[in-house]
Amino acid sequence: MIIVMSHNASAREVEAVLKRLENTGFKVHLSEGVERTIIGAIGDRTRLGDMGLEAMSGVEKVVPVLQPYKLASRAFHPGDTVVTAGNIAIGGGQIQVMAGPCAVESREQLLEAAHQVREAGATILRGGAFKPRTSPYSFQGLEEKGLELLAEAREATGLKIVTEVMDARTLPLVAAYADILQIGARNMQNFFLLREVATVDKPVLLKRGPSATIEEWLMAAEYIMAGGNHRVILCERGIRTFENYTRNTLDVTAVPVVKYLSHLPVIVDPSHGIGKWRFVPAMARAAVAAGADGLLIEVHPDPAHALCDGPQSLTPENFAALMEDVRRVAALMDRGVG
Amino acid sequence: MIIVMSHNASAREVEAVLKRLENTGFKVHLSEGVERTIIGAIGDRTRLGDMGLEAMSGVEKVVPVLQPYKLASRAFHPGDTVVTAGNIAIGGGQIQVMAGPCAVESREQLLEAAHQVREAGATILRGGAFKPRTSPYSFQGLEEKGLELLAEAREATGLKIVTEVMDARTLPLVAAYADILQIGARNMQNFFLLREVATVDKPVLLKRGPSATIEEWLMAAEYIMAGGNHRVILCERGIRTFENYTRNTLDVTAVPVVKYLSHLPVIVDPSHGIGKWRFVPAMARAAVAAGADGLLIEVHPDPAHALCDGPQSLTPENFAALMEDVRRVAALMDRGVG
Amino acid sequence: MIIVMSHNASAREVEAVLKRLENTGFKVHLSEGVERTIIGAIGDRTRLGDMGLEAMSGVEKVVPVLQPYKLASRAFHPGDTVVTAGNIAIGGGQIQVMAGPCAVESREQLLEAAHQVREAGATILRGGAFKPRTSPYSFQGLEEKGLELLAEAREATGLKIVTEVMDARTLPLVAAYADILQIGARNMQNFFLLREVATVDKPVLLKRGPSATIEEWLMAAEYIMAGGNHRVILCERGIRTFENYTRNTLDVTAVPVVKYLSHLPVIVDPSHGIGKWRFVPAMARAAVAAGADGLLIEVHPDPAHALCDGPQSLTPENFAALMEDVRRVAALMDRGVG
Amino acid sequence: MIIVMSHNASAREVEAVLKRLENTGFKVHLSEGVERTIIGAIGDRTRLGDMGLEAMSGVEKVVPVLQPYKLASRAFHPGDTVVTAGNIAIGGGQIQVMAGPCAVESREQLLEAAHQVREAGATILRGGAFKPRTSPYSFQGLEEKGLELLAEAREATGLKIVTEVMDARTLPLVAAYADILQIGARNMQNFFLLREVATVDKPVLLKRGPSATIEEWLMAAEYIMAGGNHRVILCERGIRTFENYTRNTLDVTAVPVVKYLSHLPVIVDPSHGIGKWRFVPAMARAAVAAGADGLLIEVHPDPAHALCDGPQSLTPENFAALMEDVRRVAALMDRGVG
Repeated sequence: MIIVMSHNASAREVEAVLKRLENTGFKVHLSEGVERTIIGAIGDRTRLGDMGLEAMSGVEKVVPVLQPYKLASRAFHPGDTVVTAGNIAIGGGQIQVMAGPCAVESREQLLEAAHQVREAGATILRGGAFKPRTSPYSFQGLEEKGLELLAEAREATGLKIVTEVMDARTLPLVAAYADILQIGARNMQNFFLLREVATVDKPVLLKRGPSATIEEWLMAAEYIMAGGNHRVILCERGIRTFENYTRNTLDVTAVPVVKYLSHLPVIVDPSHGIGKWRFVPAMARAAVAAGADGLLIEVHPDPAHALCDGPQSLTPENFAALMEDVRRVAALMDRGVG
Repeated sequence: MIIVMSHNASAREVEAVLKRLENTGFKVHLSEGVERTIIGAIGDRTRLGDMGLEAMSGVEKVVPVLQPYKLASRAFHPGDTVVTAGNIAIGGGQIQVMAGPCAVESREQLLEAAHQVREAGATILRGGAFKPRTSPYSFQGLEEKGLELLAEAREATGLKIVTEVMDARTLPLVAAYADILQIGARNMQNFFLLREVATVDKPVLLKRGPSATIEEWLMAAEYIMAGGNHRVILCERGIRTFENYTRNTLDVTAVPVVKYLSHLPVIVDPSHGIGKWRFVPAMARAAVAAGADGLLIEVHPDPAHALCDGPQSLTPENFAALMEDVRRVAALMDRGVG
Repeated sequence: MIIVMSHNASAREVEAVLKRLENTGFKVHLSEGVERTIIGAIGDRTRLGDMGLEAMSGVEKVVPVLQPYKLASRAFHPGDTVVTAGNIAIGGGQIQVMAGPCAVESREQLLEAAHQVREAGATILRGGAFKPRTSPYSFQGLEEKGLELLAEAREATGLKIVTEVMDARTLPLVAAYADILQIGARNMQNFFLLREVATVDKPVLLKRGPSATIEEWLMAAEYIMAGGNHRVILCERGIRTFENYTRNTLDVTAVPVVKYLSHLPVIVDPSHGIGKWRFVPAMARAAVAAGADGLLIEVHPDPAHALCDGPQSLTPENFAALMEDVRRVAALMDRGVG
Repeated sequence: MIIVMSHNASAREVEAVLKRLENTGFKVHLSEGVERTIIGAIGDRTRLGDMGLEAMSGVEKVVPVLQPYKLASRAFHPGDTVVTAGNIAIGGGQIQVMAGPCAVESREQLLEAAHQVREAGATILRGGAFKPRTSPYSFQGLEEKGLELLAEAREATGLKIVTEVMDARTLPLVAAYADILQIGARNMQNFFLLREVATVDKPVLLKRGPSATIEEWLMAAEYIMAGGNHRVILCERGIRTFENYTRNTLDVTAVPVVKYLSHLPVIVDPSHGIGKWRFVPAMARAAVAAGADGLLIEVHPDPAHALCDGPQSLTPENFAALMEDVRRVAALMDRGVG
């Protein structure tokens, strides 16, 4: 870490900062320039957050040198991490596609969707039983009944199941059914929940918050890993930008950047990322071409009557066509699908 | 709600939309222009979210006419709502100042801070017992011990207490101590938690998410109100912008806008809003001049040794000076302080 | 256009709006609901901007139904527009790659770069003679001397030339040399300049402003087209987001969206879009997979000694490898390169 | 400046960076930590932008220590700069209010507005003769005729005139009439234009770009100052955020921050900052309470018939009431108005 003192910092102020650092166990180096005095400090980066050095008199700014995350960093674990859910490996040679409806609505809807997406090549079924909705008046999910239907669909198709957990209290229930626990974008910094899923022996699919930086996203992964669960799958799902024609802006750029900074697998959700089904296939191709390890796609047997996110759901026919495209792009990346 | 059909929508597509609306109980009006067919629909706005009309073939866009919130709107409740915590009224003629440290660190620190802020004119003591921290390696709060210390400080000073609740499981514990429950910015869209605090008989201070629109913020308030708790205090605490010199950008503009759209009281937290104590007094003045009903200010007996957010905490001396300023601006707005 | 009246608008206020619309030549339709009165107005959308209806008493909001651009819209020109620069066609079956250094620095540097990018398959040479720089102390370009060197490189390699025009006064000079005129991102809403390039018989490569919405970008294209020059090539070059690890966030999502809304060709500049050469190849692949008609890539014989944007420039070797990738993705899209 | 090498940088890579810095005239200091090698470099900060150190092999990041601007910084000029336009001083004890219509529309409109704003206490008349409009189909200003009318209004009222210059070619014309040259928000990074106004002997009112950071804004001021014109007035006019209820979000936070970083006067334009007249008075009060040196306010004799920005223009009556408020807040800041 580097501490830049203000141009009129006194010798006493510099001394106080040095002493504070040394007392906390940092090795310091002082550099007095013409315009600024600069202090370099080497020590345990995880203590930086609590030191409040910028509150000290005469300090202009504090510049961290190392990233604040450790376990999630590529430096900590140079090879790619492969996360498994049963016999399905995410982050390895195969690209995995998770598909299904936004929300579990009924037995018929879910089973139909499950068979359709499996037919087209998906290996994991998505479907929300607990739904975070912006409006208190919107459909909030079938809850436990939805989880039971997901289990039935798994039984019927052999697909693994990914579903969202919204709260520490319902975590045991969701974990009893899910193969992969999804942390939704709005909960990316729900630190209580992150600490709880860290104690469960299930892979966690961690969605990026719509306004989160990549560092914040990796810090959320660090929470889960620091708590003991290293099976984290990162999922880019669109960021909030000024554009309002689309629901969000899918940040494909994040894919190669995260793969460079971290060893964790990265998948992409173009359905939420854009919010209009028409643009999902192009962005699915782009994501795989950029190096994504998988996709999360909303598919509904009848999007116009979906209780949730119909406008961004593909019909089974369009999904099958998308899978054809994805296979071709994957081949070009020397990868298979599923 | 208005549905704009695409320029090449067929008569059958228009018909399908009309039928769907009518079946859901909307009264419709068809307007066929040269370039576009437009459908107006009048009915229960709260059903709009689940209809997925944009997924229907031939629909270009759906434009809501009414705001999606009801209970939180000025139209629903034309007068100003005054929320009380014991004998303290928020949203009335008096401006209330909530002040204290970011985190409860120790008995000495908290009691010292409590006496100091009361002395200067604050009526409510802030202090976190459960702390949402970006890093898993940072101090996470004293938890129940912190709540006990807050209660002791209340006993000693007569100040009311506002403290954050982070999770439904710990809500009963926090509610047993707090006079006002704070929902933190990162939890503004933690809908589970919103539904839980809706069932508690305590005022809720709802912080705005750093990237939330005003509509999203009012929808979060609507969750609490729809669940039965109408004692919501809104708190602007800075939004994320491109500026990186400050921690956030305090959105003073939100104050008159929210006061116009809603009847709920609005307070402002300039400490988090900027993140540098130096700018807090100017922004406290600005907030009151813009019409805020109160302030939330971080004050620490020794900011340089604070375990949390030292750089944005005022010393007791600077806080006392700020209170002088606030009183003068309040007078100009024909209001008192405390 | 739809005018939503506020819930307490008087009959006189409604009347005034109706009269104002009719006097301006709009056909109006009144719809009186329980909660709101709504006025639909059909007429010349280009007059909307000057009417200031929202300033009228009792008006709550004005919702445009049609996009504000005409000539740039897909509805106006359903087929894809192909823009030619000599024998090079942009927006047709072939993907065109424009490559070269950020700035023209010297004869040796430019000619070396030109030969290298042509060798690898580029058809158009990029290179700035006038450079917009954030700092007044940075290298501002060789100006006319740079243009002469570009012409020499064209002569030597057969490549076409794209270079930036920053100002109406120097436009005739730049236009005398360039095959394609580039409008830089910071000038996307320099309406004077847009009106001027509209009068020149050269294709215009219009970069998207880093904070511009797609609609604003297409409105800038509309300026050029309304002035008589329909040969506009759109170039996505990264948007400003909260992410600060990369220079910008390349908005790949914009590619399929713009291709849907407009008939104009769209190319992508991953070099500026990210600012780190390491991520350029992945994003070039993603752009082509998403449907881009071409790429703009910074290549420098010696990036570490570049006078401008070295960190984002590829070495000739890395560029050649990228071109291999691009050819493979293009084939998958049934397109060739160059 | 500090250069952080990547964790696996070789001795040769470190050596190359050291040599590059020394050859450019920097004094260097090497610090080899356990996890990272760090190089401190002291020298001419203005050369940093052209060195492209991040393109060098083994370099992870480059962290500037000093701000990139000099002349605009408070360190360069510790006292407040007062800019004068004739007998009007901006940045001194008096708060100056610039008011008038968005665009000059006619002799009657302008003279009426001029008398009205002078009556209420404004000292400077605003009014656009050249108008930057998002749509090519909107009213683009009366151009020279508008300038003549402004001069006539000055003659008639004694008000000074501020008006926008959009282009280097028309600068001599505008400068012949204006007392203060306005650089519009969209031209904040039109570096050609900045260099041109730097050579004119008139004060320049530099609007902040809607997505510009404070540093970028001050760098734009630096352009003008480095070119020889130190009479720069900064004008905050709203930034682009996710909020869409208002046109922009007025960034009041920028006022104390810029006053701290720079010695230049800062004024605030709440009319553009919000886009709805209703909220202008509250934000004018907030701006002055936060320390602004002046205001720029749109006033139109008949907003509903304005050719430009009617929805954000105050009626003369509302403006007079606003001036009363401003006087009271100014008094509290120990300042007068006008």
